[in-house]
Amino acid sequence: MKNIQYSKGVTQYLPFFYIIWADDLLSVSEINVVKHALEEDTTLEDQEKELLLSWLKNENSLKDKEVKIWKQIIDASKIKIIENESYPLTFFSQKVTASYFSDSSFNESLKKIEVNLGMQPNHYNHLFEVKISTNKTSKEYDSAIIDSILKGKQAKVVDTFRKDLSATIFNWETIRDKSTHRKKVLEQVKHLANKGYGAMAYPRVYNGTEDMEGYAAIFEHMMYVDGSMAIKFGVQFGLFGGSIQKLGTKKHHDLYLKNTGEASLLGCFAMTETGHGSNVRGVKTTATYDKKSNQITIHTPGKIDNKEYIGNALDSKMASVFAQLIVNGKNEGVHAILVPLRDKNHNLLPGINVVDNGYKLGLNGVDNGKIWFNQVAVPKDNLLDKYGSITNDGSYYSKIENPNKRFFTMLGTLVGGRICVARAGLGGAKMALTIAIKHALQRRQFNDNKKMQEDLLMDYPSHQLRLIPLVAKAYVYHFTLDKMMYEYCNEASDKRKVETQAAGLKSIITWYANATIQECREACGGKGYLIENRIADLKNDVDIFTTFEGDNTVLLQLAAKGVLSDFKAEFNSAGFLSVLKLLSNQINDSVTTANPLYTNKVDKDHLYDPEFHKNALNYRTRRLTYSIAKRIQGYIKKGVPSYQAFLKVQTHLISLGKAYSIAKAYEAYYTSISIIKDEKYADLFKKLGVLYALHEIRIDASWYLEQSYIGATKSKAIRQRVERLSTELRPHINTLIDGFGIPEHCLTAPISK
Amino acid sequence: MKNIQYSKGVTQYLPFFYIIWADDLLSVSEINVVKHALEEDTTLEDQEKELLLSWLKNENSLKDKEVKIWKQIIDASKIKIIENESYPLTFFSQKVTASYFSDSSFNESLKKIEVNLGMQPNHYNHLFEVKISTNKTSKEYDSAIIDSILKGKQAKVVDTFRKDLSATIFNWETIRDKSTHRKKVLEQVKHLANKGYGAMAYPRVYNGTEDMEGYAAIFEHMMYVDGSMAIKFGVQFGLFGGSIQKLGTKKHHDLYLKNTGEASLLGCFAMTETGHGSNVRGVKTTATYDKKSNQITIHTPGKIDNKEYIGNALDSKMASVFAQLIVNGKNEGVHAILVPLRDKNHNLLPGINVVDNGYKLGLNGVDNGKIWFNQVAVPKDNLLDKYGSITNDGSYYSKIENPNKRFFTMLGTLVGGRICVARAGLGGAKMALTIAIKHALQRRQFNDNKKMQEDLLMDYPSHQLRLIPLVAKAYVYHFTLDKMMYEYCNEASDKRKVETQAAGLKSIITWYANATIQECREACGGKGYLIENRIADLKNDVDIFTTFEGDNTVLLQLAAKGVLSDFKAEFNSAGFLSVLKLLSNQINDSVTTANPLYTNKVDKDHLYDPEFHKNALNYRTRRLTYSIAKRIQGYIKKGVPSYQAFLKVQTHLISLGKAYSIAKAYEAYYTSISIIKDEKYADLFKKLGVLYALHEIRIDASWYLEQSYIGATKSKAIRQRVERLSTELRPHINTLIDGFGIPEHCLTAPISK
Repeated sequence: MKNIQYSKGVTQYLPFFYIIWADDLLSVSEINVVKHALEEDTTLEDQEKELLLSWLKNENSLKDKEVKIWKQIIDASKIKIIENESYPLTFFSQKVTASYFSDSSFNESLKKIEVNLGMQPNHYNHLFEVKISTNKTSKEYDSAIIDSILKGKQAKVVDTFRKDLSATIFNWETIRDKSTHRKKVLEQVKHLANKGYGAMAYPRVYNGTEDMEGYAAIFEHMMYVDGSMAIKFGVQFGLFGGSIQKLGTKKHHDLYLKNTGEASLLGCFAMTETGHGSNVRGVKTTATYDKKSNQITIHTPGKIDNKEYIGNALDSKMASVFAQLIVNGKNEGVHAILVPLRDKNHNLLPGINVVDNGYKLGLNGVDNGKIWFNQVAVPKDNLLDKYGSITNDGSYYSKIENPNKRFFTMLGTLVGGRICVARAGLGGAKMALTIAIKHALQRRQFNDNKKMQEDLLMDYPSHQLRLIPLVAKAYVYHFTLDKMMYEYCNEASDKRKVETQAAGLKSIITWYANATIQECREACGGKGYLIENRIADLKNDVDIFTTFEGDNTVLLQLAAKGVLSDFKAEFNSAGFLSVLKLLSNQINDSVTTANPLYTNKVDKDHLYDPEFHKNALNYRTRRLTYSIAKRIQGYIKKGVPSYQAFLKVQTHLISLGKAYSIAKAYEAYYTSISIIKDEKYADLFKKLGVLYALHEIRIDASWYLEQSYIGATKSKAIRQRVERLSTELRPHINTLIDGFGIPEHCLTAPISK
Repeated sequence: MKNIQYSKGVTQYLPFFYIIWADDLLSVSEINVVKHALEEDTTLEDQEKELLLSWLKNENSLKDKEVKIWKQIIDASKIKIIENESYPLTFFSQKVTASYFSDSSFNESLKKIEVNLGMQPNHYNHLFEVKISTNKTSKEYDSAIIDSILKGKQAKVVDTFRKDLSATIFNWETIRDKSTHRKKVLEQVKHLANKGYGAMAYPRVYNGTEDMEGYAAIFEHMMYVDGSMAIKFGVQFGLFGGSIQKLGTKKHHDLYLKNTGEASLLGCFAMTETGHGSNVRGVKTTATYDKKSNQITIHTPGKIDNKEYIGNALDSKMASVFAQLIVNGKNEGVHAILVPLRDKNHNLLPGINVVDNGYKLGLNGVDNGKIWFNQVAVPKDNLLDKYGSITNDGSYYSKIENPNKRFFTMLGTLVGGRICVARAGLGGAKMALTIAIKHALQRRQFNDNKKMQEDLLMDYPSHQLRLIPLVAKAYVYHFTLDKMMYEYCNEASDKRKVETQAAGLKSIITWYANATIQECREACGGKGYLIENRIADLKNDVDIFTTFEGDNTVLLQLAAKGVLSDFKAEFNSAGFLSVLKLLSNQINDSVTTANPLYTNKVDKDHLYDPEFHKNALNYRTRRLTYSIAKRIQGYIKKGVPSYQAFLKVQTHLISLGKAYSIAKAYEAYYTSISIIKDEKYADLFKKLGVLYALHEIRIDASWYLEQSYIGATKSKAIRQRVERLSTELRPHINTLIDGFGIPEHCLTAPISK
């Protein structure tokens, strides 16, 4: 028995009184409840009651000294509150008292105070040391190691960029007015250009580092600051600059690439028209060459043929305009021409009209506008003539004779933009997941009414199932997009394949990003709805990613046609019949019967086996390809024109495009993680891959069941395994989101603190 | 051969020249292309060429008279352009010429002009009469009749309300600044109150019409104006006024109900707390009764115990505050107390602090705020004491002894709000569908490269599949919610059942609304992203409906528990064990084996049979109920505490909640449409029901396959039937969306014109 100035009866009340007095103000309800409890407490002597009651007298405010003594007594006991006990405070009091008086029994009156005032550990855990029996997070993995695996060879670029993002110009704030927002974003883009990020993907001679892969990595990071900044940056350096770099020749590079990278020449990419969104080949703007003047005249023929939704349109001095090139009265198809828009004083040049697109759902820091050209003449040399030029004798020349092939070759060079958009979507998803999970690791809701502490949101199975598979997907898509960009940059790659894959992956990943951000918004409840918590802006900014750089529905059909034609370029020329010939030769029914061994295998080893996943995902792709081909053949035989035949299988094509992309993503991920040497981390990444694959198979389970590729038992086993994996990854979830490496200074959401 | 002043060769060019000259300005590309074609045209005499070339000379601007003559010649021929011909303009020219010169042959030079200038019928159909061979829409059904079926007995209220919405105060505009937006919305709400809509649901003695069903119908319509207006209106009259009406007694009604309905007393509903979102029973705000002063003191004990997200908080003079009522030191559970917030000059009263929640994703016209109470005393009479009162001798009294039952009875009276939120979500979905479908009935994209005209978006199967089932769902949910509100208002209804159903339906319908608006946004591409096209605001406003008036995930568990306990009130008191006893008695395995006759039936009659749909949907509900019960029993037997057992089946419970709600919605729809007498319309509504049911069964096909309730062939047949039904309904889709009856003056989106 230690020395103590209070009796045993009084001591047991000390933790309660300390909490009550900690805010320096006794509330009516506290007085009411405690008084009542004291009166009922039969274990107390009259003298003790009197002392305790005197501490409840508000007018007779206690001296700080007395409250300090209580704290010293409590602290000296070295007892910790155990959060998950039924009545943590009552038990705590009992143990503190026992440490001074050898023993102490559970006091029903104390329990009543605890219950009636609803005193939960998270309301007073700043006052005492609290022992949490179940850890919020396991320390098994190190988020820094995970981060460095994700960064891969981009570590240096990424680390520098993260530091650069701490500049005050990138501080987050709520801006509702579009002109204020645009002004800030323009300054940010110029700041990034000054740091050399604008020219990154350009050749060294124009101040670049020829590092398109690094560019993609930092592009994703821009989403942590503001979606508008990322998109404005992408328009200026990727689309406008990219069109000069990829479609122009040395004369254009020498004149414009350096200024563009420095953002001293601001430009836009004028492709889409009001009347023609996805169908770029059908744009109406004409570019007519006149031999006499040696000029090209740009013209908007009809009311709805204006350029639409052009980013950077209000700030730009120049536009890369996509138009039907007419030489000697012949339409040579769509080409890009550089057209000056404004003079030095930023006044529009004659014949040019630009109208602000106004407010949008998101990305209001980007100045989108409509552009009309009224007979605007530019020098012949303004034609970006890498793939098609006008010779000195005034006739058209191109190495690529087939106009469709020429068109798709030009568009193909711009595929990097699609990968970047997917990358930005992924960044948005990572950010939203980080905020929602950090919140779920603090926020408590409901309990079993037997204990005082409520449960963490993250400990609810429904919360785990709604968020953890999405984290696994973020990991898979991270590696997939890294690999995709590597392929795009690699001269040796099959360009047509890269294009097909980029089209499909852009679609599934931007849809994933939207669904993920939405799930995070809902998982944070009303808190997720507040602008300050950042998810709202991410949601609105990322939303349009499903539409721009190619509408997802259209892109998936493109991807599917790529698969069908075995990536033969002729396909895009709409020569459907020749493709069908190819198909009937190449596809046979050998894949229709699944291996019966697989159909009912439900053991963990099998369900975790990447060979099973690959087989399932590829089976789906092959089977869909075959059945589409068969259906089309059937229609053709009945005399249905091929265009109509393809229209009839349109929804089927979209399924194929998705299936193909999912299989490719998994394959890319699995190849990428095979280089991880540390077995512990390799296992973690494999587990994330398992969750991805099973989750995807689960989504299409009805199809697999219809095909008898899996049996009912296996289908159930997969569903259960997805839930179980989500629960198994729960202890590591904090490490996994920290592994995304989002800089602390970008995580401004109060709920993620 | 009729009289004509031009030769045959010249006449065939007239339609082309007329189109080119119609905009009064010849473009370079037009001159270039036409000149080239004329030079190559071997059918022309030199004289004819000369005349035609002279018409291309820009400087020599033609007199209006000459152009007029061309038009007269064309019109006099009475030929119509046939839109879906391969080269409509060339064929048209040929036919016009033939009408004057007996015959005329197809001219390749004209075709070249048509192709090179990309002249599509939708670019010139304002100049000539165009015959559209496939109708955009069928006239088989009358949208006014459909609308009147939907309005049902609310026709009078709805028609008046629609007219009232044409007042200029409801004109739509883009407002980004929250104070401007809030000001406008407040004025709109007062305007509605002046028209008598605020008091609608109140008793006649307080100027109401006791018409809660009519209230729900007009509430939906408010979404066509502005989501913020609907929610602000709902907070003032439904939540604040509703709490007085439903939880208060005559003394409160007499004092406040009339003023509230007139909006001369603005109030808010202060339930949610920062620390307690969904768990209302766990709110921390205390309301302590002091016998001496006969007052109740309202107090916010901790930092995160403030009222959060309270709509109308900045404009309110009074709040209906939910707090733990403490009488004589005993916590009697959550009760509502009226607390004045501000004086006549709108200054906060002593002890009250209100902070603006700031900008949100949407609903920025609603003033949400946080409220803190610091020892605020109000008279005892301010306790809304219908279900629990303080007697004159200062003790607590309630007819309902069980505190949990009492709590849920109080909340149950407020269930009307949940139905209204679902209704508002439905309104948002209808509006978005109307805009997206009107757009898809005008917008063209791509073609087969063999004809000039591009295809309507609405004619793409993928577009039909993405939008038409959502229209069918809107119809089903319309009738479901009408019926739900009728049940809620009907004194004879089983209140517990109404609550369970409202919880479930609110969840599935608000999720449906969000998914639908998102689909519409994407279906409109970039156009859907512009604020002016309205979908953006609908998206952001409706988003939070999944969270407020009860988080969907929590509500679905509530619904599932309602099903499990066979609606026994004890369930909500967390007396899990007693419920389990009930379950084991009531549920047996009789439903596990499906009727083998059904498993492989794929004929149309069967797939269209409502008995099949009901059987399938109910089978799922019953099977899930049984398997959850079994799993819980298993856990309990192993000694798992019941709370933990329920946690383990949480995701399973959510599935049950959804399944139950879908089955109930279909049932309600089918009962409702049975009163339609006109067979033609009855058939149409039945077809919509088929599409709803098959679409829902399709979504859960993997589960039905796992259960062997359907076989693989049937599963495929259902998928095909969903696609086919979507295509079959395509000709009526314009009528179906017009049937929603959204007032023309509310459809301001330029793309819906």
